[in-house]
Amino acid sequence: MRATMLYGPGDVRCEEVAEPKILEPTDAIIRLSATCICGSDLWPYRGANEVAAPLAMGHEYCGIVEEVGSAVTSVRPGQFVVGSFCLSDNTCPHCRFGFQSSCEQRQFMSGAQAPFARVPLADGTLVATRELPADDLIPSLLATSDVLGTGWYAAYAAGVQEGSTAVVVGDGAVGLMGVLAARQMGAGRIIAMSRHKTRQELALEFGATDIVSERGDAGVARIKELTDGVGAESVLECVGTQESMTQAMNCARPGGKIGFVGVPHGVEFDGQQLFFAQKSLLGGPAPVRRFLPDLIALVLDRTINPGKVFDLELPLADVAEGYRAMDERRAIKTLLRV
Amino acid sequence: MRATMLYGPGDVRCEEVAEPKILEPTDAIIRLSATCICGSDLWPYRGANEVAAPLAMGHEYCGIVEEVGSAVTSVRPGQFVVGSFCLSDNTCPHCRFGFQSSCEQRQFMSGAQAPFARVPLADGTLVATRELPADDLIPSLLATSDVLGTGWYAAYAAGVQEGSTAVVVGDGAVGLMGVLAARQMGAGRIIAMSRHKTRQELALEFGATDIVSERGDAGVARIKELTDGVGAESVLECVGTQESMTQAMNCARPGGKIGFVGVPHGVEFDGQQLFFAQKSLLGGPAPVRRFLPDLIALVLDRTINPGKVFDLELPLADVAEGYRAMDERRAIKTLLRV
Repeated sequence: MRATMLYGPGDVRCEEVAEPKILEPTDAIIRLSATCICGSDLWPYRGANEVAAPLAMGHEYCGIVEEVGSAVTSVRPGQFVVGSFCLSDNTCPHCRFGFQSSCEQRQFMSGAQAPFARVPLADGTLVATRELPADDLIPSLLATSDVLGTGWYAAYAAGVQEGSTAVVVGDGAVGLMGVLAARQMGAGRIIAMSRHKTRQELALEFGATDIVSERGDAGVARIKELTDGVGAESVLECVGTQESMTQAMNCARPGGKIGFVGVPHGVEFDGQQLFFAQKSLLGGPAPVRRFLPDLIALVLDRTINPGKVFDLELPLADVAEGYRAMDERRAIKTLLRV
Repeated sequence: MRATMLYGPGDVRCEEVAEPKILEPTDAIIRLSATCICGSDLWPYRGANEVAAPLAMGHEYCGIVEEVGSAVTSVRPGQFVVGSFCLSDNTCPHCRFGFQSSCEQRQFMSGAQAPFARVPLADGTLVATRELPADDLIPSLLATSDVLGTGWYAAYAAGVQEGSTAVVVGDGAVGLMGVLAARQMGAGRIIAMSRHKTRQELALEFGATDIVSERGDAGVARIKELTDGVGAESVLECVGTQESMTQAMNCARPGGKIGFVGVPHGVEFDGQQLFFAQKSLLGGPAPVRRFLPDLIALVLDRTINPGKVFDLELPLADVAEGYRAMDERRAIKTLLRV
């Protein structure tokens, strides 16, 4: 099969590789219905992470079970499944505590920008639908696998609840999903920080009530203006740079909560500053598996349409163009047809 | 009157100063029933904070109202009052959100290691009791002003609830009050980390179920052993050094919460480490005013006896010995009779 490999900064290729096989009795092999490129794929693509050997890219996936290992009992060939980008057994104490992304057996999915993929820990990781979903729901179901689940976790970690004021820092796909999540959780006011017209429009469509196009100190000043000088009780940090984290911290009110899901690159916190700022911090790889059954249900009954976050659709063979388009911010998120 | 002034590292004196006067219409003057030395007083005493001019020491207080400014309406001369070490108006948005220690008008109390003290923002800060309390309750009422309120906030910020497993890092007075607070909040298991016999005994008396005397990696290993390899969902960090913070972080389970109330000195967090650790952080100067009415009630009906944390009692004139005893860890906390 032809799959996606990253060789180094800017060098991503669709090339012939061996089809995946069951390696462990807990594995499943799935035939992907669609796959996509994640904002976090851009870190190694941009050279921010070291790439030692060619990397099999892709960790967002949904599709049909082709084959399962001998120990797999909860899914069977022919079923449609979605799984989290974090593979987990869903039985260890961390999983049972709702933090499957810190599973004692945690692995990160890879190799999903391909027609077939091996999913380790299939019983713990995959959620099957009762029936095969309608084709037009595939993009939204694919979104639950990571980008929506991650935006959802940001809103959860930021403590969004009925009537909250939430600020979303970052207008990438995760930030936009954060807007959608905050809306579903009942936030009364959702302020999306974005300078890009198409992203602003999508944010409004997903439920943003206000757009702030300023950044840095000016952005914080605008948030303060919009909140009677107080700041927001919930801030979703969906970027991962020091600049965006500082902006998030300064947008939150004392006692407010910051949910951070952008993988931090070069971010540091001074303990005493954090102390006197008196703001709560929770981040991490999202425990998508916790939310997955609910998110899938919301998609299947068409309450939400997170698939709208895909504004570019390409055949897998053109994956390199998909990366380029996201890197240059011409596309929010690229869906790959396999 | 004779009051406590800090001139520099190790140099604290009880010396003649002018009696405090009403300076603002929102002030009150109180005659202290007792006062005490705080662990945080040891930072400047040990030279960890710069001391520019002689500092009027003391921020924990309770006593009888002597005089009030013209704008004060909620307390009157003759009443017994307790106030927080953080002065707040209790009406601004941050106060109403329960974070009085981030009040828009926040000031920090000073000059309370003295027979009389001026309390700014008296209406927002002071809580009066219905009657004059019994003398034997004075130490416990004094404790609510900071040390108990701070331990309470640590337990709150660490998310302690019915049945929680809580670890308390730090066996100073605040840590011991954290144990008491966790017990009151219904924690099922309270593990106090302490190497000192008298402090261990007091921790057990306040409600600790386990004592861990190891520190650092060995301490973390012991906590893991006691929690089936999982870690605790609630950790109270009551010291403020990098070492104690690292210990606290490593004792918490993924998804667990760390409430940190030791003023951080030289503490830093790496963003990516914090992300993958997936632990929640909330710290700050405690919003004692939020808890004060409840804490006072618990003392008055003798449900709790936080005053037991004072293991040294001296006349104010001997304040220097009180500092020395705490600095050398001969005393947990010194009560000063005025």
